[in-house]
Amino acid sequence: VQYIFNEDISALKNYVGQHAIFIIDNNVWQHHSLMFNGEKVILFDANEANKKQSTINFLIEQLIALEADRTSFLVGIGGGVCTDMVGYVASIYMRGLKFGFVPTTILAMVDAAIGGKNGIDVGLYKNMVGTINQPQFIFYHYNLLQSLSEVEFINGFAEIIKHAAIKDKELFKLLQQHSIADFRNNTALLHEVVYKNVQIKNQVVTTDELEQHERKLLNFGHTIGHAIENLYQLPHGHAISIGMCMEAHISEEINNFYSEEKLALTQLLQQYGLPTHLTIDKEKVWDILLKDKKRAQENMAMVLLRSIGNATVETIPLVQLKDLFNTLF
Amino acid sequence: VQYIFNEDISALKNYVGQHAIFIIDNNVWQHHSLMFNGEKVILFDANEANKKQSTINFLIEQLIALEADRTSFLVGIGGGVCTDMVGYVASIYMRGLKFGFVPTTILAMVDAAIGGKNGIDVGLYKNMVGTINQPQFIFYHYNLLQSLSEVEFINGFAEIIKHAAIKDKELFKLLQQHSIADFRNNTALLHEVVYKNVQIKNQVVTTDELEQHERKLLNFGHTIGHAIENLYQLPHGHAISIGMCMEAHISEEINNFYSEEKLALTQLLQQYGLPTHLTIDKEKVWDILLKDKKRAQENMAMVLLRSIGNATVETIPLVQLKDLFNTLF
Repeated sequence: VQYIFNEDISALKNYVGQHAIFIIDNNVWQHHSLMFNGEKVILFDANEANKKQSTINFLIEQLIALEADRTSFLVGIGGGVCTDMVGYVASIYMRGLKFGFVPTTILAMVDAAIGGKNGIDVGLYKNMVGTINQPQFIFYHYNLLQSLSEVEFINGFAEIIKHAAIKDKELFKLLQQHSIADFRNNTALLHEVVYKNVQIKNQVVTTDELEQHERKLLNFGHTIGHAIENLYQLPHGHAISIGMCMEAHISEEINNFYSEEKLALTQLLQQYGLPTHLTIDKEKVWDILLKDKKRAQENMAMVLLRSIGNATVETIPLVQLKDLFNTLF
Repeated sequence: VQYIFNEDISALKNYVGQHAIFIIDNNVWQHHSLMFNGEKVILFDANEANKKQSTINFLIEQLIALEADRTSFLVGIGGGVCTDMVGYVASIYMRGLKFGFVPTTILAMVDAAIGGKNGIDVGLYKNMVGTINQPQFIFYHYNLLQSLSEVEFINGFAEIIKHAAIKDKELFKLLQQHSIADFRNNTALLHEVVYKNVQIKNQVVTTDELEQHERKLLNFGHTIGHAIENLYQLPHGHAISIGMCMEAHISEEINNFYSEEKLALTQLLQQYGLPTHLTIDKEKVWDILLKDKKRAQENMAMVLLRSIGNATVETIPLVQLKDLFNTLF
């Protein structure tokens, strides 16, 4: 995977070959359509509610209509839902086309676009169907963030804080010294943090593409986060912010994670405008948890913190997890 | 990929781990259900008309209902449609489970189950969506063929004759000396030919899994064959038998293939009960051809014979191919 920084958007054409098809989120298109004058374009609403098979069917129909063949190169331009879906459709159309991403949200830049995981939801079950398949490139262009809403900007910092919590205490401290406003107003500072996060995630997925060990750590906050995301129609960052708080609580209970550090994590999430608590319907959330990809028969693999910057994967029997669930939340 | 011959069906359990789910064609189930007493089973009608996304949706729902997780091992038991679809669903469910095949038709034994190509049709376009992903094993058990219809038995010999035509003149001669009845009545002879064909296909796909060069040869008869298969609702073997005859005709015209050998190929197909001619609607067939995965912009990659046992991949401009199409057929 080639990570491309600091190039003008016009340089994109140098990376996509002769037969590019740009698959673009409608939100991005509204603000940046002029960039794609004269190109083959497919537009769609890349929101979580559309992250499902019927949208894939639509994209396939559009590709057939455009006579896409194995020489075609697909470029996904949008947030994480867009890159997840374009990566998936590129992996299955004609058994696989080459593809690249232009992430247009913080979340996609530091997380979703990196690592080759793609796919769609099935009902309430997140990313139940998909493949692991790497893009040719990820193209970073911060000007695209100018049209990003405050809510979406905040959303991305949930994954940044997650990376800090599991892997990088220095990054955690740096984040404590800043605010969302600092990053919105200072592209150099934003680049520093985005670049750091790209390095963290890339290092993890390069070491362990198929998620046998190291890559599992990235799931911190995502076991409970995924279970509540679609049920309560939360933005992904909100869901995993709450998920991290709940899993930090479990970490405190059974993994010797200090309550002071749990508090520091909660405070940092609040500092970046992220929610840290949700009243949940335990029965419903539990039923979704049981379908999580990290379940293996009667156990759940869950990422717990030992300290800030240091996480472990624990195998928790479902009976114990249910018990924790009932007493802690 | 492990090829398993000469073991009793009861040995299957040694290859599938603790959490097997058997996905079985209803036709097979009717005759062999006793084999699967007490196992987790998903049944479906694995026919060409069902080789589409809605059936994949059904299989995914069933897997969720059975609480399939990443420790689950899927076993596809049926003909080529079954192995294509089980391979596909295993490749995308939770981003990939391990899987194996028990092919129950000649066609699946010598061709479809081998090589890792899987997928589904989209409307009239064959195998438009899928992945390339290898099974853990292919389990051969000739007793399963006892319930195979004559039509299906004949169907499989189209791919056997194809292998002979592109790769193995000795096999071609051996086939000339026998008939379908010989193979139905003589398991040792059948095994000799099945085993030979497994070797041919396995050698090709091992050398060139991603179909960059050698593997393309396996598409002999399949460019035109696939274009007519769904349009005229032909059994796969019938479609590619007709496709081979038409592509042999093109080979004679532009690839110096002798007309005597073209005749020998046609006669061998007839000897095995396969059709060698079809009156086609050229416009409709041409429109489907244009969507073939072997098309690259204004050219079509087509496999042509030079002599029996010796095939080449030729890049034919669409304008020339259309011209041949109009004059020869």
